[in-house]
Amino acid sequence: MTNRIHREVIGGHLLVIGGAEDKYNERRILKKFLSLAGDEKAEILIVPVSSDFPEFASDVYAQAFRNLGVKNPRVLRATSRQDVFNADADALLDGVTGVFITGGDQMRLVSILGGTKFAQKLGELATTTNIVVAGTSAGAAGMSASMIVRGEATPHPHKNSVRLSPGLGFLKNIIIDQHFTERGRISRLITAVSYNPYNLGIGIDENTAIILDREGVLEVFGEGTVTIVDGSQITYNEIAEVKDNESFSVCGVQLHIIGDGMIYDYFARTPMQPPNEFLLPDIE
Amino acid sequence: MTNRIHREVIGGHLLVIGGAEDKYNERRILKKFLSLAGDEKAEILIVPVSSDFPEFASDVYAQAFRNLGVKNPRVLRATSRQDVFNADADALLDGVTGVFITGGDQMRLVSILGGTKFAQKLGELATTTNIVVAGTSAGAAGMSASMIVRGEATPHPHKNSVRLSPGLGFLKNIIIDQHFTERGRISRLITAVSYNPYNLGIGIDENTAIILDREGVLEVFGEGTVTIVDGSQITYNEIAEVKDNESFSVCGVQLHIIGDGMIYDYFARTPMQPPNEFLLPDIE
Repeated sequence: MTNRIHREVIGGHLLVIGGAEDKYNERRILKKFLSLAGDEKAEILIVPVSSDFPEFASDVYAQAFRNLGVKNPRVLRATSRQDVFNADADALLDGVTGVFITGGDQMRLVSILGGTKFAQKLGELATTTNIVVAGTSAGAAGMSASMIVRGEATPHPHKNSVRLSPGLGFLKNIIIDQHFTERGRISRLITAVSYNPYNLGIGIDENTAIILDREGVLEVFGEGTVTIVDGSQITYNEIAEVKDNESFSVCGVQLHIIGDGMIYDYFARTPMQPPNEFLLPDIE
Repeated sequence: MTNRIHREVIGGHLLVIGGAEDKYNERRILKKFLSLAGDEKAEILIVPVSSDFPEFASDVYAQAFRNLGVKNPRVLRATSRQDVFNADADALLDGVTGVFITGGDQMRLVSILGGTKFAQKLGELATTTNIVVAGTSAGAAGMSASMIVRGEATPHPHKNSVRLSPGLGFLKNIIIDQHFTERGRISRLITAVSYNPYNLGIGIDENTAIILDREGVLEVFGEGTVTIVDGSQITYNEIAEVKDNESFSVCGVQLHIIGDGMIYDYFARTPMQPPNEFLLPDIE
């Protein structure tokens, strides 16, 4: 993991949300997004192309951001590749400090955006500027280079319980899964990691997010937990040897379940001990 | 784990079944039980006290064993401690080569059998003779010294998602969970292990069993998989610091998911590589 080419390159921050983030009450995650985007100076672009109802999705988020003080959130209005080609990518992204990718269907997201000038420019901004790119649910899944596209929440981790497809690639060797413990997705994430244990699997609960910075720091933020599946110590992996609907053996999977405020070093692949967390306060 | 006092002591075999084992068709697990009990020389005792309908449960298993050639399976007929006190433990267990503990409610099993002469004698036989003791579902859970008694299959592993209670204690530092992946119980098993990571957690799927011998060999046998939760490498464990209904962080959990024929060394706590599993056959 020492070679820069083989690890994540993040210019500012990625905010990866497990779906169903609170939009009306405490709104911790949306506030965090705006804070990373520069608060009152935030220039926000909403990307609702994953959604079945992109107009509705963009309205919901535009209103949520307006309620939090954003003056004129922009929207990429597109339901087809043609719309994306016709959109003025330069104008849409010029001066933007935060991009928010909504939920829906990650396959739609990638099949519409993939390979367009807009996606290329967004990727450049994400790696070379201080921008924050946020994605929730499908928008979170789509950030991976190896993206989980479907897969029933099967009890046994069988080989066919998950399909991978190329995603937007903001995360080069991290596979994101979302609505994670709510939908019992640990088996499919272990399966996804077992395909190529080079990838780190990160499952994010609803109303919960991870914030990744350029230095390898991943912080958990929100109500639920984040489950990290590290396959780098796998000693035995049967996945190539079984039929599609068969369960397979896999040994030596490392699991970290971390909650709000916990930090994981995604370069070194190690959870960081909270400093003095359980100590009584010093008496001065 | 080198001190004999602190590890499992098994005289013959323990056969621990995840529930819903096939009783009418292939019957691999029941056949394995009888084979470990001496086949045509098997003397079988059925212990149905966990069950809501012990007469029915004992009839089902008695018939299943008769169909497989057992002449006169014995039954511990008891629905109360008084019944167990009145039973002739010596006569029931004399010459027995296999004991089968049915499913039902593990709390009932232990509250009726615990501390009786019958349980004491069974424990002695299990540790000092070549007997096989089998348990399915509640009968499997009850084998642990620290027994899982209830716990909703919650999405998040929160502190209150599992309660432990003293079990029959055939397994001194292994916590058994059953109907495992079918009921999505990984969170509660991780929680149970987090209470005291000294314990090894073993989750067994339906129609699947583990066979433990006296030498530390645990073999998986059956249709599903067995999930081993090893907490000995846990680096961070928040369970003591959170409220009952809160989720907690836990880092460094080791997970092994192993299927039919795979072997795990439960003394050394390490999965054993199948020898030459994936090699092409030698050409003679």
